[in-house]
Amino acid sequence: MDTPADVFAARRQALKERLREQRLPGLLVSHAANRWYLSGFELMDSQCNESAGWLVITADGEDHLLTDPRFEEAARRVWPGDIVIYTARKLDKIGAFLESLALPRLGFEPKSLCVRDYERLRENAAFTPTENLVEDLRVIKDPGEIALLEASCALNHKVMEALPGRLVPGMTEAEAAWEVERLFREGGASALAFSTIVGADMNAALPHAEPGPTRLPEEGLVLVDCGGRLNNYCSDQTRTFWLGRKPSDRFRQTLDLVREAQTRALKFIGPGVSIAETYGLARKCFEEQGLAERFTHGLGHGVGLETHEPPSLSSLSQDVFRPGMVVAVEPGLYWPDWGGVRWEYMVLVTEDGCRIL
Amino acid sequence: MDTPADVFAARRQALKERLREQRLPGLLVSHAANRWYLSGFELMDSQCNESAGWLVITADGEDHLLTDPRFEEAARRVWPGDIVIYTARKLDKIGAFLESLALPRLGFEPKSLCVRDYERLRENAAFTPTENLVEDLRVIKDPGEIALLEASCALNHKVMEALPGRLVPGMTEAEAAWEVERLFREGGASALAFSTIVGADMNAALPHAEPGPTRLPEEGLVLVDCGGRLNNYCSDQTRTFWLGRKPSDRFRQTLDLVREAQTRALKFIGPGVSIAETYGLARKCFEEQGLAERFTHGLGHGVGLETHEPPSLSSLSQDVFRPGMVVAVEPGLYWPDWGGVRWEYMVLVTEDGCRIL
Repeated sequence: MDTPADVFAARRQALKERLREQRLPGLLVSHAANRWYLSGFELMDSQCNESAGWLVITADGEDHLLTDPRFEEAARRVWPGDIVIYTARKLDKIGAFLESLALPRLGFEPKSLCVRDYERLRENAAFTPTENLVEDLRVIKDPGEIALLEASCALNHKVMEALPGRLVPGMTEAEAAWEVERLFREGGASALAFSTIVGADMNAALPHAEPGPTRLPEEGLVLVDCGGRLNNYCSDQTRTFWLGRKPSDRFRQTLDLVREAQTRALKFIGPGVSIAETYGLARKCFEEQGLAERFTHGLGHGVGLETHEPPSLSSLSQDVFRPGMVVAVEPGLYWPDWGGVRWEYMVLVTEDGCRIL
Repeated sequence: MDTPADVFAARRQALKERLREQRLPGLLVSHAANRWYLSGFELMDSQCNESAGWLVITADGEDHLLTDPRFEEAARRVWPGDIVIYTARKLDKIGAFLESLALPRLGFEPKSLCVRDYERLRENAAFTPTENLVEDLRVIKDPGEIALLEASCALNHKVMEALPGRLVPGMTEAEAAWEVERLFREGGASALAFSTIVGADMNAALPHAEPGPTRLPEEGLVLVDCGGRLNNYCSDQTRTFWLGRKPSDRFRQTLDLVREAQTRALKFIGPGVSIAETYGLARKCFEEQGLAERFTHGLGHGVGLETHEPPSLSSLSQDVFRPGMVVAVEPGLYWPDWGGVRWEYMVLVTEDGCRIL
């Protein structure tokens, strides 16, 4: 599903307003998801450090799309304005173009511009670092985006519901991961949102375990963290299943505690609520059992055009929840010699709390 | 298949020698494939700008792996040396660590370090830009890597051979792309090496076409550019097929010309041969027909742990082919109102020429 051209245009207008507020004459957009959000041009780059193109959004003038000839036709199909094509001497061409704009200052995205490009182009542009100018727009999802995220998450639920019948003892983690991918793709996802994590028993203690030749146990746990990209929008959920006749007491107790931490967090989340305090609340639930140090990652993250996007649900966040945010909430506990349990829902922050998608 | 620990250790020794030659006391390795090449730790990052970790390789001392708690167990499984764990205040922790090393200079990878991290960490480290220090090692594949690339490319051939029976008129490009993915995954690939390109007729004029709802023609062309990741190593091949009873004259002539350009290039490639001249030779083949401007991209690229890696087969290359290089050679011609034809082989540069994998 494509987003209508006027939605992209409206987003550019919103960014232009932000630029005027900050008295910034223009912004070089190099972050791929930001580029797509503003233009509909190429949501992803083929490799990190291999960009399909950049945008220059100006506060009061024309906007420009910069790309190479491989993407020229694709750019013309979605971009109404000026297109700058660079070939082999990419940075020379871009540098000359930026200089021709003669902007007194040009914002850039320090997280998404590499030092090589920056050092070369600063000869031609009065670069000014910016922080999350586009991400701050993206963080509040509009009704169209919420509908797409809901549909994407609904597919994730279907995959999770199909899994218990398909995760059979003796199957390898890698085979299980491929089952997950098939379910997403046959359900309409254009791709996975991220590499599926399948961890059997002790491998579940690796929060980013790569599914390998380890076989799923006759009697034991398996953690599955997966997501698909449906109509451009990502999903991200985790479940920890028990295979076999009867979950061990340790598994049940750990799962109960993880879900208790999640429930407390979800009850707390709502407009104006501190993100750092929400993280603290979940952590406290583990602390009460002397297990705080077994919770080795943040509480979650925004989900949208990227699997991981702002806001980050960390102890250091200065932000509060706002209606329209969509975040994954994923407490977990890990022991290298036993395994791990994580449970993850995506929730939409509403006017009076939050709702699980 | 994992690479034995002593292979990673030998690669680190080779890098240490290069550092000593360049009188550089250490290198901060932030590029994901370089990290894996030297350590076996995490070949890919989960998103661009979301690193699983970095290495610090020193010319004459200990080496260090820096990561966050999510990857700590995975790191301990592969890394014999010091591991630095950072949590929420990542850059503070890394900065303090780099400062504690007190290296008079620390090389970094300007293409793979973002401006934000660089600006923060240069307070703690005497950064010196480097270029392709690790890539220059990776560019010459060792016999183990060549065997893996051959196996990966063999799977790609199997996929390409299966396609003519599966690409049926009326099927959408997106469905065809999913067929390709299934063939790779069911053949043992852990993932695609890159998003499959399937372009029917005019869509084949977009060298990076995203497969969409366009249906494959009853009588027409379809371009497929695809690759899988098998045992960590990528493959990358393109074919342009004709669907229907009889290829049009224009298709046959275009295909003949593209393959003629490729044949000339492959006959020319060998140790010591200029890459830029090889590009020029292929281009000249098109120029003779007045079609040079329809060849809108480089002639190819290295393939290994990444789909696109050095050397770049461009007119600006200063490099020559050397035995052990593995490169994709992919001439193509494109017309937005008609379509495009591309043909791509992976070749190994040998002692006396090159060999198609």
